[in-house]
Amino acid sequence: MAEFPPLYIQNSLTRKKELFTPLKPPHVGMYVCGPTVYSNVHLGNVRTFLTFDIVYRYLIYLGYHVRYVRNITDVGHLTGDSDAGEDKISKKARLEKLEPMEVVQKYTNDFHDVMRVFNMKSPSIEPSATGHIVEQIGMIEAILDRGYAYQSNGSVYFNVRKYNEDFDYGVLSGRKIDDLINNTRSLDGQDEKNDPLDFALWKKADSSHLMKWPSPWSIGFPGWHLECSVMSTKYLGPQFDIHGGGMDLKFPHHECEIAQNAGATAQSHSVRYWMHGNMLTVNGRKMAKSEGNGFTPEELITGNHALLERGYSPMTVRFFMLQGHYASPLDFSNAALQAAEKGLERLMSALTTLETLPTKANSRNPDVDITSLSDRCIKAMGDDFNTPILISVLFDAVKLVNSIASDHIAIDATQKADLEELFNGYVFDILGLMREDKGSGNNNVESSALLDLLVKLRGNAKSNKDWQTADAIRTALGELGISIKDSKEGSTWERD
Amino acid sequence: MAEFPPLYIQNSLTRKKELFTPLKPPHVGMYVCGPTVYSNVHLGNVRTFLTFDIVYRYLIYLGYHVRYVRNITDVGHLTGDSDAGEDKISKKARLEKLEPMEVVQKYTNDFHDVMRVFNMKSPSIEPSATGHIVEQIGMIEAILDRGYAYQSNGSVYFNVRKYNEDFDYGVLSGRKIDDLINNTRSLDGQDEKNDPLDFALWKKADSSHLMKWPSPWSIGFPGWHLECSVMSTKYLGPQFDIHGGGMDLKFPHHECEIAQNAGATAQSHSVRYWMHGNMLTVNGRKMAKSEGNGFTPEELITGNHALLERGYSPMTVRFFMLQGHYASPLDFSNAALQAAEKGLERLMSALTTLETLPTKANSRNPDVDITSLSDRCIKAMGDDFNTPILISVLFDAVKLVNSIASDHIAIDATQKADLEELFNGYVFDILGLMREDKGSGNNNVESSALLDLLVKLRGNAKSNKDWQTADAIRTALGELGISIKDSKEGSTWERD
Repeated sequence: MAEFPPLYIQNSLTRKKELFTPLKPPHVGMYVCGPTVYSNVHLGNVRTFLTFDIVYRYLIYLGYHVRYVRNITDVGHLTGDSDAGEDKISKKARLEKLEPMEVVQKYTNDFHDVMRVFNMKSPSIEPSATGHIVEQIGMIEAILDRGYAYQSNGSVYFNVRKYNEDFDYGVLSGRKIDDLINNTRSLDGQDEKNDPLDFALWKKADSSHLMKWPSPWSIGFPGWHLECSVMSTKYLGPQFDIHGGGMDLKFPHHECEIAQNAGATAQSHSVRYWMHGNMLTVNGRKMAKSEGNGFTPEELITGNHALLERGYSPMTVRFFMLQGHYASPLDFSNAALQAAEKGLERLMSALTTLETLPTKANSRNPDVDITSLSDRCIKAMGDDFNTPILISVLFDAVKLVNSIASDHIAIDATQKADLEELFNGYVFDILGLMREDKGSGNNNVESSALLDLLVKLRGNAKSNKDWQTADAIRTALGELGISIKDSKEGSTWERD
Repeated sequence: MAEFPPLYIQNSLTRKKELFTPLKPPHVGMYVCGPTVYSNVHLGNVRTFLTFDIVYRYLIYLGYHVRYVRNITDVGHLTGDSDAGEDKISKKARLEKLEPMEVVQKYTNDFHDVMRVFNMKSPSIEPSATGHIVEQIGMIEAILDRGYAYQSNGSVYFNVRKYNEDFDYGVLSGRKIDDLINNTRSLDGQDEKNDPLDFALWKKADSSHLMKWPSPWSIGFPGWHLECSVMSTKYLGPQFDIHGGGMDLKFPHHECEIAQNAGATAQSHSVRYWMHGNMLTVNGRKMAKSEGNGFTPEELITGNHALLERGYSPMTVRFFMLQGHYASPLDFSNAALQAAEKGLERLMSALTTLETLPTKANSRNPDVDITSLSDRCIKAMGDDFNTPILISVLFDAVKLVNSIASDHIAIDATQKADLEELFNGYVFDILGLMREDKGSGNNNVESSALLDLLVKLRGNAKSNKDWQTADAIRTALGELGISIKDSKEGSTWERD
């Protein structure tokens, strides 16, 4: 079997950086919590999926055969993120007067569009919660059989205290069960649960509930945490290598996943390496819709948002995010995006320079040390996927290429090929960057510039009382689904 | 309620062209059999999905609220297209050494890519067979309860003769049960079925079977025909308006769907209008992989196939297919594609001409009869979606636009707007054609339209001797790497 370069992963479970040793090399199984498809993806979500896109790409680059499973949550995720409230998808269906599965389709399409724009690789399997009702019922039966769950009024709840007698509830999040108990509101006597710490595996549906299935306990629906336990182990086996997700999912979602898997199988660790991505802030504040700073990828690309000075291309945003380490918070600002744009241009421009470098036979240059660069790259990625360090090494390679070109340093064809391999491997395959054609492709920057120009021309026409031209511009944009909004501060455009 | 223009549909069930009257206007429910995701989509499949894309688009255009359900078959479709053989997806999984759901993901992605390239609208819901195991078991129970099915060795079969006593098996395909019996091989005594006409609703899985679920009868998997009965009625109700699919699915697949629905509910007609698309031939021969002429959309676009003289753009292919009526066979040849390419160019070029037509106040031209063109368009589409006739009317509109331009015929702004509305509605909304940017792979439709508009505004500015505006537009485009080329025929833009 091939030797794989060492890869260290910061394991959230052990809180240590550990050498990655897959269960059955060269195979690697990886599960990542995907979106709940009830609203448009925002940029914080994009960062999480980018983190695991890099993990996936790097494992493939190293030669592993990766089965990457990322789910679609299309039922069971309640508005309270716990066992209370309405199903998020059903609620949206009610608001938009759609059938829940129409909501699922609409936002799954949006999610896939965003993943494509940011050049994320498709996972190997993208299973959905509603597609695994039979398997979820099966896991509940197994947990009931082992005594870690109980029925109550047609619903089934996981018995956290009972589980904690045999296993360790809190092992991932580091929370202590006694603290959890002290911080939980007491039950009001009406609750179906025996204990406020318990969580739902199956909920009996009331008459208003739109998505429900028959089960041995009631017509109902699965608890939110259950789907990930079921789908990860169905496709990756009872034990698998990597489980990833956003930091906000560590507790209770991932803690409950661990408990469910152990409760169903009596095996205490289903996942060997837990990885958690950190969050994205905007000008130092948490990104959230309520803050008005949770902009969508489309707004970011077009620049059509009050917080954005202008639009940024998808690859600029990708490069910007990769300049931070996935486990650290990252702050989004126009200045940082503009710096990233310049950096990416420098990187891509060096690639063009490299392609046009002349080579000379028998002129291997001992000062051009590509092996050392390559070693530093693999070391950076091997140190918990440290993309910011990797990018700094790539900029040393950029300097080298530029100095070879400007100082007319002779190199031979092998050296040139090695440099090209280094850039292609790290820039395109691992970092997943793409060349962006200015003015074509999925680059909406051009459209935005043209729209700004048209709005300005319409303003001039109005000043000159050339109403025909002003109206013609408004009408033509209207046909493209773009409105012009006039206000005291001037005019802006907006997609309908 | 709004009045809808009359729409006649050739109903495969009654073999008559019938006035379309939906069950609950303005709502329309439409179900179309989607792909079995075990191989790349070929061009014959594309034609079928295009047919129903047009139906969907036209119904929306007329003002209906359409719920369009198109399924993904990811289990149960056996290699023999009947009850024998291996599951197509499992077989591919074995050959490609993948988990079956990895095969499903791979070819679902391919299918979605192809749909996007050909500008097909996404359906409202895209349910999968594996996502509806619970519901399929439920329908089998209902059919068993009514006595139209029987268990045999852990499998469940539909009893065709028993069903035919109460209903009419063969109602859709026109086949007579006695002929079917005479043409069927007799059972060899080993068979689980009571009668060779019977078909599987649930099959017990043998140990080699990869995809299986628990059921009241065995660990097994649903029969292929069942999923469509289940998913159509789950999302569209026990009776719905339109069911579509390729002609090859009429028997036995759709015949069995009818039998299952009637067997489960005792209602004899679940579907009001059955529509079947005809097939695509290549140089007069049936398109098939074994004939070496079943090329993929990618081969078609790149021209990378022995039968292709060169590549054709997706919109050329779309336009070519729409020049035939969906219910007639269509023959694919290089000559026909090249003719379609020229036709499409003529059409799109007339659109640009139209956009730049000058208008004159108070000069409504009585010879420019747009109402008559519009009536002919709606009549063509109302006559069973007759796109070839529609296209011939659009070419009359092209002639009209070109003669207005070349003969400097005066029209007023309303006439121009009416012409634009006619073209935009039929060319873009209903036929679903897009402007294709020459020279850039991803055609940026919006940018092109904006650039056309800017070139026109610059032309107007020049006519008005407003040199400042004309220069400002040229300069601003120059900064985006776009040049304006002036010639006798007018001005065009070009990327540098």
